[in-house]
Amino acid sequence: AREFSIAVIAGDGIGPEVVPEGLKVLKAAADAAGGAAFNLTHYDLGGKHWRETGEALTDETLEELRGYDAIFFGAVGDPAVPSGVLERGLLLKMRFAFEHYVNLRPTKLLPGVASPLANPGDIDFVVVREGTEGPYSGQGGYLRYGTEHEVATEVSVNTAFGVERVVRDAFARAQTRRKKLTYVHKHNVMQYAGHLWRRVVEKVAPEFPDVEFDYLHTDACTIYMVTDPSRFDVIVTDNLFGDIITDLAAAVTGGIGLAASGNINPDRTSPSLFEPIHGSAPDIAGQGKADPTATVLSAALMAEHLGLNDIAARIQTAVEGDLAVRGSGVRTTSEIGDALAAAAAASVK
Amino acid sequence: AREFSIAVIAGDGIGPEVVPEGLKVLKAAADAAGGAAFNLTHYDLGGKHWRETGEALTDETLEELRGYDAIFFGAVGDPAVPSGVLERGLLLKMRFAFEHYVNLRPTKLLPGVASPLANPGDIDFVVVREGTEGPYSGQGGYLRYGTEHEVATEVSVNTAFGVERVVRDAFARAQTRRKKLTYVHKHNVMQYAGHLWRRVVEKVAPEFPDVEFDYLHTDACTIYMVTDPSRFDVIVTDNLFGDIITDLAAAVTGGIGLAASGNINPDRTSPSLFEPIHGSAPDIAGQGKADPTATVLSAALMAEHLGLNDIAARIQTAVEGDLAVRGSGVRTTSEIGDALAAAAAASVK
Ligand SMILES: CC(C)[C@H](C(=O)O)[C@@H](O)C(=O)O
Ligand SMILES: CC(C)[C@H](C(=O)O)[C@@H](O)C(=O)O
Repeated sequence: AREFSIAVIAGDGIGPEVVPEGLKVLKAAADAAGGAAFNLTHYDLGGKHWRETGEALTDETLEELRGYDAIFFGAVGDPAVPSGVLERGLLLKMRFAFEHYVNLRPTKLLPGVASPLANPGDIDFVVVREGTEGPYSGQGGYLRYGTEHEVATEVSVNTAFGVERVVRDAFARAQTRRKKLTYVHKHNVMQYAGHLWRRVVEKVAPEFPDVEFDYLHTDACTIYMVTDPSRFDVIVTDNLFGDIITDLAAAVTGGIGLAASGNINPDRTSPSLFEPIHGSAPDIAGQGKADPTATVLSAALMAEHLGLNDIAARIQTAVEGDLAVRGSGVRTTSEIGDALAAAAAASVK
Repeated sequence: AREFSIAVIAGDGIGPEVVPEGLKVLKAAADAAGGAAFNLTHYDLGGKHWRETGEALTDETLEELRGYDAIFFGAVGDPAVPSGVLERGLLLKMRFAFEHYVNLRPTKLLPGVASPLANPGDIDFVVVREGTEGPYSGQGGYLRYGTEHEVATEVSVNTAFGVERVVRDAFARAQTRRKKLTYVHKHNVMQYAGHLWRRVVEKVAPEFPDVEFDYLHTDACTIYMVTDPSRFDVIVTDNLFGDIITDLAAAVTGGIGLAASGNINPDRTSPSLFEPIHGSAPDIAGQGKADPTATVLSAALMAEHLGLNDIAARIQTAVEGDLAVRGSGVRTTSEIGDALAAAAAASVK
């Protein structure tokens, strides 16, 4: 059996509740499929660790994490920790250091799942969100902090290198799907960044002559997300616009309880990271209420990334089967995990 | 009769089709109500003007516009003009120069209007979008333009002065409504700007002890916009987040064909500007297809701003009456305008 080393960071809030379920289903699928074993190493990072040590993620631990085949992540965000400390110090630190330039967010309305839209149509697209630069660069600062004349700046830093690699990845993904790419920005206002994005898309497009591409302003994109989401196949956009539209995309396909993501380094020069797109949800933490499905689907994305397509398919089939018969009955986090694990073990690809 | 001087800028695309309808309904309401006359001066600005003269809006014209009581605006954006030239050179130039720091976007699901949401509930909120700074500052530039090592930056500039005045305005508006303010940002990632916003909200809040406030990340806000939009009363947010969530808000309340906005200088040191939130829609321009309702409602906002509450109410009543009986029958732009004008003349406040 091929062995994979996985670093597990459950993190905050509901993270430690959903991550074990994701791993449970992954193991069940792997055992049934045969051929893969996962060596898990748990890292106790997040709010508690920060409060005890003052550290979110040291450079030493970061370098250690670099040695794994993949990282399985729960959620970050603790009300007792200043906003941004863990987000930037832990999650974004990994995304940036490990060059997770493809933040992949598949969006599909699965049978049995209720959409808040009256006529959702056949929604099936993926968002390729840039993950290593743009408005998330963290550059900026204060002038005259705390005075009535204070100025606070945030700098979006966009590079030809960074934009080109993610745009090319998105075109390539479109080529394996319905061959339609929509790039989303706000180039009529964010003129410098938008101009670079536009030039890059126009430069890369001829390499993919069979892919049709169009452009939407981010504001217009949110409109289509609720009026005609089936128009999308692949969307490529920057780090901030991608953050916003993927939560909306998740909402129209049944909610962030179901939305998985991969923070992917397509060049495989460092481990990719897989996580649900939801946050730590401190309001429902500790109650066994959280839906682990997004985390389970993130495990499927991880399996796929590791080349374990049979395992990924088992998990996906298990989730789809479960969703199709889910009524309004209330199950606990681990009851859902158990059901999915049993289904993943049973399902024949 | 009180007289008001109005600068009219119809602009591009469907702008010149919808603006006359807005003015038609305004005049009908004013004639019926008595007591107000509008002296209109038309400015031929937009794509055509730029292509002929290379100018979007000269400083001289800008200063001339300063002398009016209000500006009535159509839309900006012409496919034959480089992206951003008119947006920044015309519309944003006025918003910034005239300190339109309250970009007001009322959002209400009116009876008879279909929402794309299956269970929209009772949607009635206003978005107070900052209009003079933040990510719209236009600061930034290129390094190594056009090379593989290019860097493009965009700087969001946020001032205590600018944030405080808009936050205070939003709290005051909440006080006249259901007393609930939601401020929306992304302070876990945009740490400098977000920190300033947070400190300002916490500083201003005690002045409005009867207003309850909460915070949402922008991504989470888009989720509530489709799952529970009736939770909102007043939203205050920055220029970019406000741009995005107001298009979404318009979409869930029947579309941008109905969404009005005021670019307001509450200090009245320069004219406020009223416009539909939709764009120039070049794809349907010149066909008499555009729905002028958003522009008509913008005229109502303008009337209200000028203290003409009876006229504003007539227009509002006319629109609500028309929407309540609108079927799927197709009317032209001017047919809708005629119907609204007749109703505004007839309606008794
Ligand atoms: C937790 C936060 C830093 C993160 C982001 O903004 O990227 C989250 O919202 C996400 O989408 O993964
Ligand atoms: C036309 C464009 C510059 C404008 C904006 O981004 O503010 C529009 O989208 C709006 O919302 O008024």
